[in-house]
Amino acid sequence: MSNEASDSSDEGSSGKVPSAKIVAVEPKSGRFESLEAAVVAGGGQIGPVDEATALVWADPARPGDLPGVLESAPAIEWVALPYSGIEPYLGFLDPRRVWTCARGVYARPVAEHAIMLGLAGMRGLATYARSRTWSPPEGVNLTDANVVIIGAGGIAEELISLLDGFNCTITVVRRRASPMDGADNTVAIEDRLAALAEADLVILALALTPETIGIIGAAELAAMKPSAWLVNVARGDHIDLEALVDALDNNAIAGAALDVTSPEPLPDSHPLWEHPRILITPHVANTPEMGVPLLAAHIAENVARFCRGEGLTGVVDIDAGY
Amino acid sequence: MSNEASDSSDEGSSGKVPSAKIVAVEPKSGRFESLEAAVVAGGGQIGPVDEATALVWADPARPGDLPGVLESAPAIEWVALPYSGIEPYLGFLDPRRVWTCARGVYARPVAEHAIMLGLAGMRGLATYARSRTWSPPEGVNLTDANVVIIGAGGIAEELISLLDGFNCTITVVRRRASPMDGADNTVAIEDRLAALAEADLVILALALTPETIGIIGAAELAAMKPSAWLVNVARGDHIDLEALVDALDNNAIAGAALDVTSPEPLPDSHPLWEHPRILITPHVANTPEMGVPLLAAHIAENVARFCRGEGLTGVVDIDAGY
Repeated sequence: MSNEASDSSDEGSSGKVPSAKIVAVEPKSGRFESLEAAVVAGGGQIGPVDEATALVWADPARPGDLPGVLESAPAIEWVALPYSGIEPYLGFLDPRRVWTCARGVYARPVAEHAIMLGLAGMRGLATYARSRTWSPPEGVNLTDANVVIIGAGGIAEELISLLDGFNCTITVVRRRASPMDGADNTVAIEDRLAALAEADLVILALALTPETIGIIGAAELAAMKPSAWLVNVARGDHIDLEALVDALDNNAIAGAALDVTSPEPLPDSHPLWEHPRILITPHVANTPEMGVPLLAAHIAENVARFCRGEGLTGVVDIDAGY
Repeated sequence: MSNEASDSSDEGSSGKVPSAKIVAVEPKSGRFESLEAAVVAGGGQIGPVDEATALVWADPARPGDLPGVLESAPAIEWVALPYSGIEPYLGFLDPRRVWTCARGVYARPVAEHAIMLGLAGMRGLATYARSRTWSPPEGVNLTDANVVIIGAGGIAEELISLLDGFNCTITVVRRRASPMDGADNTVAIEDRLAALAEADLVILALALTPETIGIIGAAELAAMKPSAWLVNVARGDHIDLEALVDALDNNAIAGAALDVTSPEPLPDSHPLWEHPRILITPHVANTPEMGVPLLAAHIAENVARFCRGEGLTGVVDIDAGY
């Protein structure tokens, strides 16, 4: 972590002073200034990509530029990607390198946004926020409700923590039914219909993979209670949108609050904007203002680990695709 | 609690079988069916008002009818009022009787609504819920925020409990600065400006008395941070509305989320409906659907205490007016 080692590129023989590694931060757009500071804070030395052994990808808006940068950088052992979801990079994931993503890094603000959307939906804000008159009462409590969380990663952990005071019964749906800390029940993904049937609030907080595209479709929506709300802070493609609109229009569920859509951004002409039982936020569960300090802390930690020759956090499972 | 005693009106000589008391539930509108069931559940006997020693007032929409009913009922020792706020009854509070209100009974749903409004405001829903386009990111976290709660009653208790997972620093403002359980700081009402200056979220959860009318005025709003949100789940008259609109229009605070207004209902023509930084819900923190079961449980408990000759919960302090 000390800058004293920054001008040395030899592998450290002392366990106390880790070797500084040359880390490139590219492209010089997006969050590169904060991330260069994070590299230095982690004990790395900023350098050009053809001299570096690690690359921090700084601009989430430019995934397509990454392969060209890597072509000229055979020595890069580790690539740090700036988001939790890595779909734009799936075609580039070269197994000869270690790839990390920001998995779990943004979990707290994302979980908080999911709670906000769930509470707002259940307590009638889809109606009230758009009303220009004193409307009749509607709304139900989150307190004592049955909450189903689909996904068992960092967001689910933070959801369980945030729900601490609400006395909810929490069911986590995950690939295997191994128990999750803090959940009242854990069920396997293939048993999701029975779990959904009991839910007052369903929160999608899982990775997007070929297996999870459209995981909420007509059957899942039909299984839910007419009073239940659906919240999505994962990816738009987790939900079959046509089935969702059908379910809402047939009162099969009470409403949906979506921080992610497909396509994204949702075009101005899209009918979803006008649906009285849908709340949309523009993928802001984790805004840049919230996320950059969290990402910088994650990068600093991983650079320090890299300099010490330790395992990194957030390593991508290339076969699993997340 | 047993119906075996219901046909006896003599004072019980046994400690085990309390005497049933005759309790009138009037008028025969509003919530009277649920409340008659609650009287029976509490071990009371339903009877006409001129034979009763207790009166449960069943219709919150008809406070003006209460004095006429009491005129013909000199034996009534206890009057149970159906709401937490008792402003409509202040003129009738005869000190020769015991008056109870539903203080604290609805605290949990009201506190949950306040958290919903605070989260929704802080995370941009005033903009997003009304948008028909993919808006730029805004919003801040409630996690780690400074929350100021004005009022130290049942709602404040429930707010502290609900915020358990959010790692907030909680400051309670109350009449005297005696510490409140679970609050990080407790300050006296006269020191409110210093507390407000540190707040990211201010929640009004106090009773309306002559001293607390307009407790949030120009000075209080000026003391707050430009990024702070104000939530009111108490009474509309706690806020000087003109000062609030001025503060919003001058970016002195970020926004306000109001479940209560003055006047109430807010007329359709009122400019507050159109303000982009104000969220309004129509006094639904505790809807009838949420509240009637809570009120019924409170009445049953107090009827049981009345039959046993014990002190009642929610007794009104006639001099204090709440």
